[in-house]
Amino acid sequence: MTTLDAVLKPRSIAVIGASRTPNTIGHQIMANLLRYGFTGAVYPVNPNAAAVHSVRAAPSIGALGEPVDLGVIVVPKERVLDVAAECAEAKVRGLVVISAGFREIGGAGAERERRLVEIVRSAGIRMVGPNCMGVLNADPAFSMNCTFAPTMPPFGHAAFVSQSGALGVSVLDYAKEYGIGIAQFVSMGNKPDVSGNDLLLHWEHDPAVRAILMYVENFGNPRRFLEIASRITRQKPVIVVKSGRSRVGARAAASHTGALAASDSAVEALLAQAGVLRADSIEELFDMAMAFTQPLPRSRHTAVLTNSGGPGILAADALERQGLDVAELKPATVTRLAPLFPEEASIRNPLDMIASATPEGYRAALDALLDDSGIDAAVAIFVPPLGLSQETVAEAIADVARRHPAKPVLAVLMGREGLPQGKAELHRAGIPAYIFPESAARGLAALRRQREWLARPETAPRALAVDQDRAARIVAAARAGGRTRLPELEALELLEAYGIPTVASRFAVDGDAAARAAAELGYPVVVKVVSPEIVHKSDVGGVRTGLATAVELRSACAEMVEGIRRRVPEARVSGFLVQRMIAGARETIAGLTRDPAFGPLVMFGLGGVYVEALGDVTFRVAPLGPLDAHDMITGIRGSAILRGIRGAPPVDIGALAEVLLRLGRLGCDFPAIQELDVNPLLAFPTGALAVDARVLLSPSEL
Amino acid sequence: MTTLDAVLKPRSIAVIGASRTPNTIGHQIMANLLRYGFTGAVYPVNPNAAAVHSVRAAPSIGALGEPVDLGVIVVPKERVLDVAAECAEAKVRGLVVISAGFREIGGAGAERERRLVEIVRSAGIRMVGPNCMGVLNADPAFSMNCTFAPTMPPFGHAAFVSQSGALGVSVLDYAKEYGIGIAQFVSMGNKPDVSGNDLLLHWEHDPAVRAILMYVENFGNPRRFLEIASRITRQKPVIVVKSGRSRVGARAAASHTGALAASDSAVEALLAQAGVLRADSIEELFDMAMAFTQPLPRSRHTAVLTNSGGPGILAADALERQGLDVAELKPATVTRLAPLFPEEASIRNPLDMIASATPEGYRAALDALLDDSGIDAAVAIFVPPLGLSQETVAEAIADVARRHPAKPVLAVLMGREGLPQGKAELHRAGIPAYIFPESAARGLAALRRQREWLARPETAPRALAVDQDRAARIVAAARAGGRTRLPELEALELLEAYGIPTVASRFAVDGDAAARAAAELGYPVVVKVVSPEIVHKSDVGGVRTGLATAVELRSACAEMVEGIRRRVPEARVSGFLVQRMIAGARETIAGLTRDPAFGPLVMFGLGGVYVEALGDVTFRVAPLGPLDAHDMITGIRGSAILRGIRGAPPVDIGALAEVLLRLGRLGCDFPAIQELDVNPLLAFPTGALAVDARVLLSPSEL
Repeated sequence: MTTLDAVLKPRSIAVIGASRTPNTIGHQIMANLLRYGFTGAVYPVNPNAAAVHSVRAAPSIGALGEPVDLGVIVVPKERVLDVAAECAEAKVRGLVVISAGFREIGGAGAERERRLVEIVRSAGIRMVGPNCMGVLNADPAFSMNCTFAPTMPPFGHAAFVSQSGALGVSVLDYAKEYGIGIAQFVSMGNKPDVSGNDLLLHWEHDPAVRAILMYVENFGNPRRFLEIASRITRQKPVIVVKSGRSRVGARAAASHTGALAASDSAVEALLAQAGVLRADSIEELFDMAMAFTQPLPRSRHTAVLTNSGGPGILAADALERQGLDVAELKPATVTRLAPLFPEEASIRNPLDMIASATPEGYRAALDALLDDSGIDAAVAIFVPPLGLSQETVAEAIADVARRHPAKPVLAVLMGREGLPQGKAELHRAGIPAYIFPESAARGLAALRRQREWLARPETAPRALAVDQDRAARIVAAARAGGRTRLPELEALELLEAYGIPTVASRFAVDGDAAARAAAELGYPVVVKVVSPEIVHKSDVGGVRTGLATAVELRSACAEMVEGIRRRVPEARVSGFLVQRMIAGARETIAGLTRDPAFGPLVMFGLGGVYVEALGDVTFRVAPLGPLDAHDMITGIRGSAILRGIRGAPPVDIGALAEVLLRLGRLGCDFPAIQELDVNPLLAFPTGALAVDARVLLSPSEL
Repeated sequence: MTTLDAVLKPRSIAVIGASRTPNTIGHQIMANLLRYGFTGAVYPVNPNAAAVHSVRAAPSIGALGEPVDLGVIVVPKERVLDVAAECAEAKVRGLVVISAGFREIGGAGAERERRLVEIVRSAGIRMVGPNCMGVLNADPAFSMNCTFAPTMPPFGHAAFVSQSGALGVSVLDYAKEYGIGIAQFVSMGNKPDVSGNDLLLHWEHDPAVRAILMYVENFGNPRRFLEIASRITRQKPVIVVKSGRSRVGARAAASHTGALAASDSAVEALLAQAGVLRADSIEELFDMAMAFTQPLPRSRHTAVLTNSGGPGILAADALERQGLDVAELKPATVTRLAPLFPEEASIRNPLDMIASATPEGYRAALDALLDDSGIDAAVAIFVPPLGLSQETVAEAIADVARRHPAKPVLAVLMGREGLPQGKAELHRAGIPAYIFPESAARGLAALRRQREWLARPETAPRALAVDQDRAARIVAAARAGGRTRLPELEALELLEAYGIPTVASRFAVDGDAAARAAAELGYPVVVKVVSPEIVHKSDVGGVRTGLATAVELRSACAEMVEGIRRRVPEARVSGFLVQRMIAGARETIAGLTRDPAFGPLVMFGLGGVYVEALGDVTFRVAPLGPLDAHDMITGIRGSAILRGIRGAPPVDIGALAEVLLRLGRLGCDFPAIQELDVNPLLAFPTGALAVDARVLLSPSEL
């Protein structure tokens, strides 16, 4: 038994603060433990009562005279520290602190929480809470409802952890209606000890848990989450609602949890890399969680069976929007279905059996669809017409689904009459029953995404040949000079040290030196002014392109110096950067940013003004696996441009991916790099080339 | 009484095909009319029964001996024509044909439908159906449930018309649960006579109908819909689910209704122009419809009140995603709220009263929020904690909402215990009660969109000075020559005739003529090859830009001819188009396409390869109002580029809008124009200029 087992699978529980007063938490938790038949022993602890809920009460945990696995603390905040110390003394192995009044109220509360953590850590106790709604294990072997929720969810295979107690309780409340079986539930509260990551690790090897659901307001240790979740999602699906997406939502989440809010780009990157299924709302979490009683589909090819045209069309729309494919039926399937239909009917997918469809019709048609080798999933929709119960059709669907254990079947029951019976019949067979076709489409899409994640080869970050010493010298020199911005040439050298191809560049002190450099590089060239005072060179006329001769180049240098003297009188021009001019490439941008909690993030997007306006960029947490880099490039909305449109050849995605991998490595190796932009990063049918770079260092070593 | 009143507000109904056999439609319709207390007289017609449902039956409609308002036909398809003729003979004023077996089965069915329409048209009868589920008027003055649905919805102010009977019945079935009051319901079936447009017109002036809901698979007469709906949406909201968005969905919709499917771009344009609120799913239709019991918000500024942090954050996320603004509270409001909170609490929006909130707390806080002059709407969320019923909090919310009749209040009740009571309390006060915060956000966003639509000035298409005769001559000349493609110069002339500024262009037969033209236009110039065989000139090296001198121009002409001779040997080069080269503009594209049902559509987008890859374009049905044109331009995702980013000045949106208006007029005046592209249409800080155009004519006059 691990210490978390003491919390989630205890054999004995002391409720410290158990109360005889109705509508108090100390009363309700005792009531839930007894009502739902906790299979171990419950000890109420209350100095002012002889018995609570007819169970003899002890005046203190020490007075119990025997050790208990789990202590549940529901006393006023001022007494929590003393009680926790008594629990430690009494060798309690796990604690759930329901009491509020800790970090969430700031000031004295935060200090109280710090001391509470000290007490439990030094005693080797694992603690859930404070400021939480409790824990639950619905397995009949425990039947522990140690929460003050109004209901017990049905037992099943999903574990659920919520950073909002109320939201968690609301989900438990609806679990039965949606047909989501819950194995274990934890309301994390302020989570100074037991965190979401701890629970993931705990559930990783628990065979009772086949899917993990999370409501998250902030990631305490996102990099550890990435490491753990990436592994677990290969065993069981992890579905996450992460709130605080919007500006105000993020502020509210930060205020609610007292934690810094990460940008949603970082969150999106983290979840994608970890293979986590992100749900946009609690409703979508339900839609997805419901589906995971079914097998994962081998392909996107889905059949829709309906007894009403409208819902069939809505299902087809929703499935296609979710990236699934309402596929053509094989001729053999059409032939087999034909006897079920009037002669004039067109037999196609979605398959509309019209209102006269019988349970036998559903049985025969669904069987034929699932026998079709081109179909790997089915959505069966039923709108009850006269004289036909939902239950009989549900039974037909369940029977056929059982005969096709490798293909997922999802049902949509659209009438209210007889719905509970219909749902019950389907739930017995492990078939999700939705009310709306769009929900079924979301559920099936989640199964499909999970399947695609499992089919993706596992790739560790590759070893990359880099010249870390050279890069370190460049960074050290800048810091020694008190500079936080690397000049362009140094920035390009830094990239080169990490094996990122850069355009041939020369520094020149004046026009004559520039002409000599250009002669080496070959014309046409680009020339850019070099000045520590000028960051955005093109904004002040500090860039000239397409210079074809030494004459043009010299006069461009002279004109630039003259123009800058007028526009930016304070700027010292230390010289010029001369670069070979490159044509015929597609412009992309790549970069690094650093999030306080998420660490270095690699960024990729298309270059140019349009994409800036459209914000079409992707992020991943560094270091990247090769597939992560590939996902970043193919994941932008405008990726068609890189694959080649209007007859243009595809660019070298592999070369771009290599740049992103190396940027990620650079970000990991040098915490001093706060921001780095490669703009443009030119993409060619073969190869990629960094043309300009901008590096911002942190003021002092982190 | 109009003839549609005979269908929707009858005083007497004959059910022809009324049956004594349970689970038949003829039995169920009689049962519904009697069970829900139709206030008029019901006459069963059945030659084989003396009475149906204890009401004396007549052997035929003619044998009734007195006229009835509405005949409902539920006989087998083979008998429908005879029965309809008998109804005409008996002076029945309206018909609802439930029987199926018409156009939806094709062939003989289509012919049967054609003859049915002949019968009712010549008798001046209005007919709903065939192949429908009936009609319903829940007004207690009628209490008519003339459907075979299992339930009667609560009476209220929404009218609902559905092109799918089963879906309609499913919606009625859920109306009570969602708190949507239904005034009237019509299942349209194949709609060869009474259409959605007819019902819109009928409901336009019915004071019992304050919102119109539609499920649509195809628009029979989209231009008429636009005309009618644009007017009605200024009186009452119209909410539409239009299915068949996806490729397969559209195919299925076409098969279901036997109608041509329009592109979803055309549908999107139509609904936007008509001020219709488009719901993406039936669930979203519910979310929106529920909200319209509340007033429209004066601004986007919304307060969120909650007793649980998590749902408050989710609400803030959802509201911002829907374009609403979770606004800062005024200092006075914060001061007023302060006594409700512990000293350390931060009082902000979303306002989290934590689990200890009482009904009195909800009352005081909601009142303070709605008194805040910076807040114009509120979402109140309640997750029932211990000992606090949903009903008491619902009552508090309802009380406060009544005191603020000008500001919409939407509630979210997240627990199941006591939910029916809580919902009932809110519904009595006309306050929508949602289960998920995201649904409330969708509902409020619909109210806000309706408000913005009403605030939008009504603008008729403006009179435009155009030279229609000149344009007609250009088109006629092309047709006379058997050409369906206008050469670029003619295409530009066509635009000029319609007052669209075009770049100065000259046709030149050879390099020398080109140089003379360039001397007139001024250098630098662009030269393009002119050849009837070459459509995409730049693909074959037929365009040269930036020519600065006559020497360069002449050699460019010679090189192009040489290159084209090699690449496209079959092309005859008839000469060159010389144009002044324009720099410093932002590229856009504009165009016309023609949909068989929707007629001419105007298109707008940003130019360049990126936007082609991203498909960032908008459409509107021609003719456009000035605001439509403006909406098209600001409605593209990349519109920031036109407003000016990276310090660029904004372009002349008015000039672009003017081009779109004129293109719309051109499309309306010349049905022969099948497609027209202006690419690029250059946008400047002042003015816009068409540089290249492509026009495709239909092979013969339409």
